[in-house]
Amino acid sequence: MAARKIKLMIQYDGTCYHGWAAQPGLPTIQGTICQAIEKLTGITAEVQGSSRTDAGVHALGQVAAFTIDSPVPTENLVRALNNLLPDDIAILRAVEVPETFDPISDTQSKIYRYTIYTGSVRPVLQIRYCWHRPGALDVTSMAEAAAVLVGTHDFKSFASAGDQRLSSVRTILKCNVHSEGEFIYFDVQADGFLYNMVRNIVGTLAEVGRGRWTAADIQRILAAQNRAEAGPIAPASGLCLMEIFY
Amino acid sequence: MAARKIKLMIQYDGTCYHGWAAQPGLPTIQGTICQAIEKLTGITAEVQGSSRTDAGVHALGQVAAFTIDSPVPTENLVRALNNLLPDDIAILRAVEVPETFDPISDTQSKIYRYTIYTGSVRPVLQIRYCWHRPGALDVTSMAEAAAVLVGTHDFKSFASAGDQRLSSVRTILKCNVHSEGEFIYFDVQADGFLYNMVRNIVGTLAEVGRGRWTAADIQRILAAQNRAEAGPIAPASGLCLMEIFY
Repeated sequence: MAARKIKLMIQYDGTCYHGWAAQPGLPTIQGTICQAIEKLTGITAEVQGSSRTDAGVHALGQVAAFTIDSPVPTENLVRALNNLLPDDIAILRAVEVPETFDPISDTQSKIYRYTIYTGSVRPVLQIRYCWHRPGALDVTSMAEAAAVLVGTHDFKSFASAGDQRLSSVRTILKCNVHSEGEFIYFDVQADGFLYNMVRNIVGTLAEVGRGRWTAADIQRILAAQNRAEAGPIAPASGLCLMEIFY
Repeated sequence: MAARKIKLMIQYDGTCYHGWAAQPGLPTIQGTICQAIEKLTGITAEVQGSSRTDAGVHALGQVAAFTIDSPVPTENLVRALNNLLPDDIAILRAVEVPETFDPISDTQSKIYRYTIYTGSVRPVLQIRYCWHRPGALDVTSMAEAAAVLVGTHDFKSFASAGDQRLSSVRTILKCNVHSEGEFIYFDVQADGFLYNMVRNIVGTLAEVGRGRWTAADIQRILAAQNRAEAGPIAPASGLCLMEIFY
């Protein structure tokens, strides 16, 4: 039997993990999935994820790929791996792809959703999946400011220190803000993201929402190409990787 | 300062607790709230809950009461207690009530919601708050069968062993079933509930949903007054105490 390349679509509640990327001695999504594959097939596969989500960040549409030479049929992988994985990680789909498929470089764009809850008392059943930030925020102002970010810009002001990438120019295709009751959702689609980019954008837009800044300030912050000009980083719990387009 | 009786409205994610009722050496909702009150006021209060929810059961509308002689103003209790409580427990409201208020015997009715997820892959962000039961269920049949339970009946067939109450006659005011996508919701309102009553009802209605039984079987099971006639108990994770009416 020849080796096959498998593409996985993966969902997880990141609360209890030190992020996607495997780290010795720490629970990670990548590490946990590798262990499940090894338990199932006896093979130590290198599972390459599309996004290195941070500790506490969630995913409904993470994509990963690995090459394996195992008699386990591809169509049995979803059920078999889900039986071996903990409740907070699930494989949604497993499909065979050409050996040339690269989950990182083949990415066209990704969508992240960030959720803020503005009610005064924390929402106990959603607290793992939002930023509880009590106090009303002006959604219209935030949406106006978010629109400034759409397009191709140098997003250096929104990249946390430690970003290793050579260029900080990215294209934001969509940056929508809307509210449902006391929840506010930020949907950001881009061809790529710098380190902590969505969380830095949301932390900065929250400053607009509370009246400290306006859309003009976002323009100024973007132009400054200096992280110190932007607002504080929003917590990891509110962030969810929704979909990756290839 | 005279002693005051305080009524609390409480929300919690019950996943990590051994139920409402305090047990030595185990994390419980009641125990955790008592500790927070003691930390805040220095007083060991007896916090009486309206419903002794089981391990893993959630609440958005639990009610409890306690009497306290403390200089902390009632209007500060919500914020002060929430600062001391863990993220998965929150006090929504604290109001002064007459000393005669009894959270158990003054109850007129309660509503519980039970949630089933029928999709094939577990929903990682809702798995703590539902019963993942893969495979379609016939919602129309279940709604028809649920209607049989409305009214005043002896619900002995739906009470788990260990129920201490003298009479097993209760009045179900509402027993609605509806679906939203792959989620199915059961909303049950009654003047009181026997031990595990909602979970036994849902486990039995699921047997109707999968075609084993019909509304006529529910009639027969109800008339039998024998727990062995009903279906299996549904897991605790799907159950949430929604509201208590006084």
